[in-house]
Amino acid sequence: MPRTKGDHEARRRDVSEAVWQVMATRGFAGLTLRAVAAELGATTGLLTHYFPTKNALVAYALDLLEQRTISRPRRHTGEGLAALRDALLDILPLTPEAIDSNRIWVSSWDAALSDPALSTDYARKYAQSRNGLSERVAAAQKLGELPPGDPAHIAAGAQFFVLGLVVQALFDPAAFPPQRQVELLDDYLATLTARTDPTTITRDDPGGGL
Amino acid sequence: MPRTKGDHEARRRDVSEAVWQVMATRGFAGLTLRAVAAELGATTGLLTHYFPTKNALVAYALDLLEQRTISRPRRHTGEGLAALRDALLDILPLTPEAIDSNRIWVSSWDAALSDPALSTDYARKYAQSRNGLSERVAAAQKLGELPPGDPAHIAAGAQFFVLGLVVQALFDPAAFPPQRQVELLDDYLATLTARTDPTTITRDDPGGGL
Repeated sequence: MPRTKGDHEARRRDVSEAVWQVMATRGFAGLTLRAVAAELGATTGLLTHYFPTKNALVAYALDLLEQRTISRPRRHTGEGLAALRDALLDILPLTPEAIDSNRIWVSSWDAALSDPALSTDYARKYAQSRNGLSERVAAAQKLGELPPGDPAHIAAGAQFFVLGLVVQALFDPAAFPPQRQVELLDDYLATLTARTDPTTITRDDPGGGL
Repeated sequence: MPRTKGDHEARRRDVSEAVWQVMATRGFAGLTLRAVAAELGATTGLLTHYFPTKNALVAYALDLLEQRTISRPRRHTGEGLAALRDALLDILPLTPEAIDSNRIWVSSWDAALSDPALSTDYARKYAQSRNGLSERVAAAQKLGELPPGDPAHIAAGAQFFVLGLVVQALFDPAAFPPQRQVELLDDYLATLTARTDPTTITRDDPGGGL
C-alpha cells in the first residue's frame, strides 16, 4: 500500500512526541538520535531521515518546545491583578504537562547559554514575557489593585520570583507541590499589593554592595 | 629530572582551571575530554590519566563547582537585614568570577535534573541555603528590621527572586548589569520591609488557580 499524507502526519506526531518524552526524561544532554529511536521503537536509520545531524535534532526540539509553549492553554479568570496572577500561574509546574515543559525549558538553558544567537533569542523572549507581565501590572494599577511604581520593575520581580520557584519545584516536588506553589505565589502577590512606594521608605541602608 | 610533588599539584591546578574554563564557556553539554585537553594544551591521552571516563570528568566538575562555591569570599557588612542582603548579593553574578560560577550552576541543572541522586542532592543544598537565609530573616525580625511572618516563607521567596534574577542576568547582561541587579534586589528587600502581614490583607481573590 502506498503511504498517504495522513500516515506521514501521524508519523511526524509520533516523532515529536518521542523527542518530547526524551527531553522531559533526560534533558537536552540526553537528547540523541539513539534515545529518540528507542522511545519511538524505530531504527536510528529511520530517524536520520528526519534529522540528518544532531544539530537538526536540537533545532527541532527547541522549535517543538516553543510551539508547545505558545499553544498551551491559558487561564483567563479576569482583568488586572487576576490577569497577572493567571499569567504567572500559567508558567508554574502545576500539572504533569507543565512539569515536563518547565523541565525542558530549564534543561535548554545550558544549550542556550553556550550559543550566542540562541542566548540573544532567549533574552528577547524573556524580555517579551516581562513586557506582557508589565502590561498586566499597569492594568492592575489602573484598577487600584496595585500601588503605584514602575510596572516594568514590578513585572521583572514577578518573573524572577516565578522562575526561581519553577527551578526549586523541579528539584524538590515534595517540598513544593502545586498547592504550595500557589500559596507562595499568592503570598508574593499579597506583598506587592501591600507594598508602599519604595522611594518613600526610609530604611537603614546596610551600605554593603559591590 | 624526576617529577616532584609540587609539579603534580601544579598540574592538578591547571587541570581544574581548564575544566572550569570549558564549563564557563560551553556548559556541561560542552564538557568533553577533548575540550579540556585543548584548553590545557595537552593530549586527550594525558587527560584519561585523570579522568578514565566521561562520568569521572562530570563528577570532578560538579565537585569543583561545589568546592569553589563553598570557598568563595563572602560579604560580612552587618547583622540582620544587612546579613540577609549580603547572602543574596553573594549569589548574584556581579563579578566575572560570579558570572562564571552562576553560568556553570545553571548549566549543571540539566545534568542534575536527569539524575535522581544528583537531583536529591541539589534539593538538599537549596533547602540548606533557604535555612541559612531563614536564620537571617529571623534575626532581622528580632531587630525589628523586617515585619513578622514565617521566616522560612520569606527566605524561600528571596531565594526564588535571586535565582530568577541570576538566570535573566546570564541571558541578558546588557539589561541587567551589576548596578541594576543590586537596585532590583534592594527594591525587593524594600518590599519585604514594607510588607504587612499577608493574613491581614483583604484583597479581591481572583479565584483562578488549578
